Amino acid sequence: MSASHTDAGDDAAYTASVVGGSGFTGGELLRLLYQHPEFDVVQATSRSKERKTVGHVHPNLREMDLRFTSPEDLESVDVLFAATPHGVSMEHVDEFRDAADTVVDLSADFRLDSEDQYDEWYDGHVCPEYLEKSEYALPEINRENLPGADLIASGGCNATATILGLKPLFDAGILEGDEQAVVDVKVGSSEGGAGGGDASSHPERSGIVRPYAPTGHRHEAEIEQFLGLSVSFTVHAVDMTRGASATCHLFPNAPVSKGDLWTAYREAYADEPFMRTVAGGGGVYRYPEPKAVAGTNFGEVGFEVDPGNRRLVVFSAIDNMMKGSAGQAVHAANVALGIEETAGLEFAGLHPVGAP
Amino acid sequence: MSASHTDAGDDAAYTASVVGGSGFTGGELLRLLYQHPEFDVVQATSRSKERKTVGHVHPNLREMDLRFTSPEDLESVDVLFAATPHGVSMEHVDEFRDAADTVVDLSADFRLDSEDQYDEWYDGHVCPEYLEKSEYALPEINRENLPGADLIASGGCNATATILGLKPLFDAGILEGDEQAVVDVKVGSSEGGAGGGDASSHPERSGIVRPYAPTGHRHEAEIEQFLGLSVSFTVHAVDMTRGASATCHLFPNAPVSKGDLWTAYREAYADEPFMRTVAGGGGVYRYPEPKAVAGTNFGEVGFEVDPGNRRLVVFSAIDNMMKGSAGQAVHAANVALGIEETAGLEFAGLHPVGAP
Amino acid sequence: MSASHTDAGDDAAYTASVVGGSGFTGGELLRLLYQHPEFDVVQATSRSKERKTVGHVHPNLREMDLRFTSPEDLESVDVLFAATPHGVSMEHVDEFRDAADTVVDLSADFRLDSEDQYDEWYDGHVCPEYLEKSEYALPEINRENLPGADLIASGGCNATATILGLKPLFDAGILEGDEQAVVDVKVGSSEGGAGGGDASSHPERSGIVRPYAPTGHRHEAEIEQFLGLSVSFTVHAVDMTRGASATCHLFPNAPVSKGDLWTAYREAYADEPFMRTVAGGGGVYRYPEPKAVAGTNFGEVGFEVDPGNRRLVVFSAIDNMMKGSAGQAVHAANVALGIEETAGLEFAGLHPVGAP
Amino acid sequence: MSASHTDAGDDAAYTASVVGGSGFTGGELLRLLYQHPEFDVVQATSRSKERKTVGHVHPNLREMDLRFTSPEDLESVDVLFAATPHGVSMEHVDEFRDAADTVVDLSADFRLDSEDQYDEWYDGHVCPEYLEKSEYALPEINRENLPGADLIASGGCNATATILGLKPLFDAGILEGDEQAVVDVKVGSSEGGAGGGDASSHPERSGIVRPYAPTGHRHEAEIEQFLGLSVSFTVHAVDMTRGASATCHLFPNAPVSKGDLWTAYREAYADEPFMRTVAGGGGVYRYPEPKAVAGTNFGEVGFEVDPGNRRLVVFSAIDNMMKGSAGQAVHAANVALGIEETAGLEFAGLHPVGAP
Repeated sequence: MSASHTDAGDDAAYTASVVGGSGFTGGELLRLLYQHPEFDVVQATSRSKERKTVGHVHPNLREMDLRFTSPEDLESVDVLFAATPHGVSMEHVDEFRDAADTVVDLSADFRLDSEDQYDEWYDGHVCPEYLEKSEYALPEINRENLPGADLIASGGCNATATILGLKPLFDAGILEGDEQAVVDVKVGSSEGGAGGGDASSHPERSGIVRPYAPTGHRHEAEIEQFLGLSVSFTVHAVDMTRGASATCHLFPNAPVSKGDLWTAYREAYADEPFMRTVAGGGGVYRYPEPKAVAGTNFGEVGFEVDPGNRRLVVFSAIDNMMKGSAGQAVHAANVALGIEETAGLEFAGLHPVGAP
Repeated sequence: MSASHTDAGDDAAYTASVVGGSGFTGGELLRLLYQHPEFDVVQATSRSKERKTVGHVHPNLREMDLRFTSPEDLESVDVLFAATPHGVSMEHVDEFRDAADTVVDLSADFRLDSEDQYDEWYDGHVCPEYLEKSEYALPEINRENLPGADLIASGGCNATATILGLKPLFDAGILEGDEQAVVDVKVGSSEGGAGGGDASSHPERSGIVRPYAPTGHRHEAEIEQFLGLSVSFTVHAVDMTRGASATCHLFPNAPVSKGDLWTAYREAYADEPFMRTVAGGGGVYRYPEPKAVAGTNFGEVGFEVDPGNRRLVVFSAIDNMMKGSAGQAVHAANVALGIEETAGLEFAGLHPVGAP
Repeated sequence: MSASHTDAGDDAAYTASVVGGSGFTGGELLRLLYQHPEFDVVQATSRSKERKTVGHVHPNLREMDLRFTSPEDLESVDVLFAATPHGVSMEHVDEFRDAADTVVDLSADFRLDSEDQYDEWYDGHVCPEYLEKSEYALPEINRENLPGADLIASGGCNATATILGLKPLFDAGILEGDEQAVVDVKVGSSEGGAGGGDASSHPERSGIVRPYAPTGHRHEAEIEQFLGLSVSFTVHAVDMTRGASATCHLFPNAPVSKGDLWTAYREAYADEPFMRTVAGGGGVYRYPEPKAVAGTNFGEVGFEVDPGNRRLVVFSAIDNMMKGSAGQAVHAANVALGIEETAGLEFAGLHPVGAP
Repeated sequence: MSASHTDAGDDAAYTASVVGGSGFTGGELLRLLYQHPEFDVVQATSRSKERKTVGHVHPNLREMDLRFTSPEDLESVDVLFAATPHGVSMEHVDEFRDAADTVVDLSADFRLDSEDQYDEWYDGHVCPEYLEKSEYALPEINRENLPGADLIASGGCNATATILGLKPLFDAGILEGDEQAVVDVKVGSSEGGAGGGDASSHPERSGIVRPYAPTGHRHEAEIEQFLGLSVSFTVHAVDMTRGASATCHLFPNAPVSKGDLWTAYREAYADEPFMRTVAGGGGVYRYPEPKAVAGTNFGEVGFEVDPGNRRLVVFSAIDNMMKGSAGQAVHAANVALGIEETAGLEFAGLHPVGAP
């Protein structure tokens, strides 16, 4: 095994740390930061894996020369990424901010704007003053507020897929917010995180189409916050590891044509480095598919019109670990720090790839 | 290899044949009839596999002592099952009826009631007079008309899943037919049939969530015919081989409680030998799942209420090859001939099972 | 949901119980016994699932009207099946024998013949006197000793696959016991049992080819005991739920032809109700495959000659939960009690089936 | 969709073309070259997909601004990569060499050194004079001959996995070439290439352990050529898309310790940028696994000693599309042209990843 050939090391402009580095999202952050030209990872914490190498847990990082440390002793860095379970970051946000100029949190703790909203969907916030101060990470909807931000909240994966699919329709006036909207989501097993219980064991989890959040999914809150649209949201677990696919069934107030839709999506995403519009055409991959973006920070959106039912169907696909989490976080950090937006996020994905 | 230990042979009450026996549905029919106590399979036809043994194509039937013959020379039998592509049966229905007292067709050729309906969704019917005469196979909605029927049309798999999920709500007056209804279906690769093209090859097909019928799926016609409900229907291919899962998002005109729903489903299905209601509770399998019924003729239905969105979510899961096709056909034949309904369909399914 | 239509109930000739009914093997036993014409299941024990219905854990058995009870209060039955972890049965064998005339144990506790053998591969036996008294379940190699047996030890799944593949070669004198023999096994995730740890979680376990027992697998002991052959044994976990496939690379002392092999396998298995020989020919399924026997009690064996390397390759495939465990146990009980051998084991399997 | 952010374009030092760009290997080459800092892809040919965009076939390359052209009109480039079926390159090698200074062929046409060898395993070569002139691509065994090479033959995937696993043992004198050696390989469905027949369709191909090359695999020839070892080789198809895993069962003439093995592998691979030795330790990933290297150019090797059987087990895992094909080709081109060896091949892989 040779010395790493991808670590920016001392040439990097910024130091970074990952709190909660042994989980799936933490591992994805480590992968991205390890190969990022502008970041040098100086610390990864994990209570359960303390003193183990990063590669012990994440076999793709066997070359990485770093061991997990206790989260008690945070090193001083430029950017701290927190990949901890919901509720942990708000308990430790002051420590995080003492340790770093910029904190990027991947949990749900700072995604919502107000304490009222938070209380409606989660249990009491311990530092609600940060709800208003934090910035939502998704650059496609919040790019202008990210430069210089010091507390950034990476969005929920299913909310991200939905928001990316629907935002162009609001911008174009095709949706107004009072429409009937059903969002039927299919997700992979990495959403359950490392560990998981009986339901996540391979014999029980493989080959399933399992309703795991039939109603009341908390990501409805983020969608409503950003789109002003109340969505009927249902999430199914299917047999893949990475990926979130949102099918949005919409009933616009006025008829809409495919041409209108192409215009709307082109206007919204023509200059976005990570968004693709895929809507019909020939070949095997005619609509958005999670496996077409697996491992990448790309999002795919597409649509079809169903005039007989006065329905518009919008498809959106992302890798939940990337555009839906760690990739979005790094993208936001790039924007916040003035780094090239696509830095460290260039991977194009694989073809063919199985159940990514 | 020993002589078969499951073939009823000369003890069987009825002779049967399968036209189109080398396809997936034909193979499933052969499996069911081979192990059925009242049927003796005397012929299986296949143009492409003529003279090959049944086990050459269907490895689960290696014990079966039968070779495919040409469809030109149909033997005289009590019941002929036709598992041919759409459009073939209507060309040959008179030959089929000459060869057998009872014909059970598994294609779409005789599912609809009128030529108008047929023409709306398919291309011109060559013998529309049979549309009215034929009986829809699904015993849960048409049991009373099956005894003595001589032309039976087995339902479409996705339509069957949807109808089984929603019928009890109409019977109970919870749905009336004018509601907004979105049906989001997830299906396995066997729906594509044996053969398949590039999109069905393993590297392209594995691990997918692929919108394959975003709008305009022909099964909408059957659903409308039997429920009087216009549904917004979208089908996705996911990574399993067998199974169809329908998630119905409904917006009833009046509020509905879980108690109302339990009552509705109990009244509809308490005496049905193949229907289970699964709605919540603990454990891993809380809602309908295709893999819980893989290989069986069972259908699972369940539901959840979403008061915030005034929505009702209904889940329905079947094995598309069984309850959605060959199992439904044999069930209907049992009813038509006065055989015990569950004969030949007792298999309970497997646990655990992977991607069935 | 209707009353069960497959439970033999009071018509059954024998009562049965399953100790350890909430595990995968216990569930498979319950499925087989529930649909068996000669058995009535009167008890299933599970400490962790006490008072839950059987269907709560095993969704394929939702119709079954039985709740798990504590293993402390064993009911008196004709046959007790023990599906407990290794080491448990030997602690409780006297209780088991008090409760039942016939005990069929599915653990490794009574598979070996002598205390010396046991100590070489496992840790000290608490009741070594039973090692000699117990009978190995596999009827293909021990049918003559099963009638009337009161303590039966069901074989290990990987050992069973190997023994079934190689036994005919010893009977025919093609192998003598001093040959170099490499056995490379591929198994599904159900071998890890319900529960499982991090390595069994879906994200870590899916898509793998993982050496999980590179050397020193305990099943070598059973193989040596029954064949007198020392095998170099390595087991890999691959992406399926059910199934064990053994590829045996053998170097016979004298050249052997395909004709010799066909003769050997025909002589060994022509009258065996559950054994198939599959060796070449056309079509997709030319050699033994686990998915061709998934859910069934069939075993497939096949072979190929490699003259250039003076090698003989033997393939053997079973469902580890069936022929490799619960199916073998029921088969042996059938023989022991004088029931039709194939009773309750007639299921032919499915085609197509995904990752079974 | 934005302009590509990864294409080196005019900044690249070398122009490149891919002949046979619509197949899986061709697509992988396009991905690697597209993101390679020193190559600019100016042409991709495909007879069947002429005039389609590259992204039409390879959805991961939807950003790539290139359409397939006919292979009749080859542009003049610095390096031409040929990803055509076996037998095509030797027919066109002079055209390829006219079009490019360096030709890298990914078929089997130029892997062997002599016409005799070729004729033993394949059918008559049309330009045997190139067999001796061409250089085998794998830098780990042929680095010194690559600089300046103008005809490079990328190795077979299964041969590559085997050679990488065993070469260190020859270098260290642990193996001498006269040992008994069984190599049991497990591969993914991408080895079958795009298209594929019935056996490759998802319903037939998923969940399998299928012996697809029981004996006589042509990669034996390459292994013998480079190691001087005759191997008993058997290949199984398993349920993954990418990946080749070789388990080598070896019987060294003298006893060997784990320490000897660590030394051998360390000496062989300590300075190799793409080789990892993984042999035991804790955690989930204790031995080489294809999914730990999916999408990357890494190879993992590991071992275990089985003293009871005087056996040495060596595990080797690669991505057949990368280290086993396109990645190896680009690596060799890097060496041939004096580019940084790891250029364009830095991707670290993903964790978790499903069936890659």
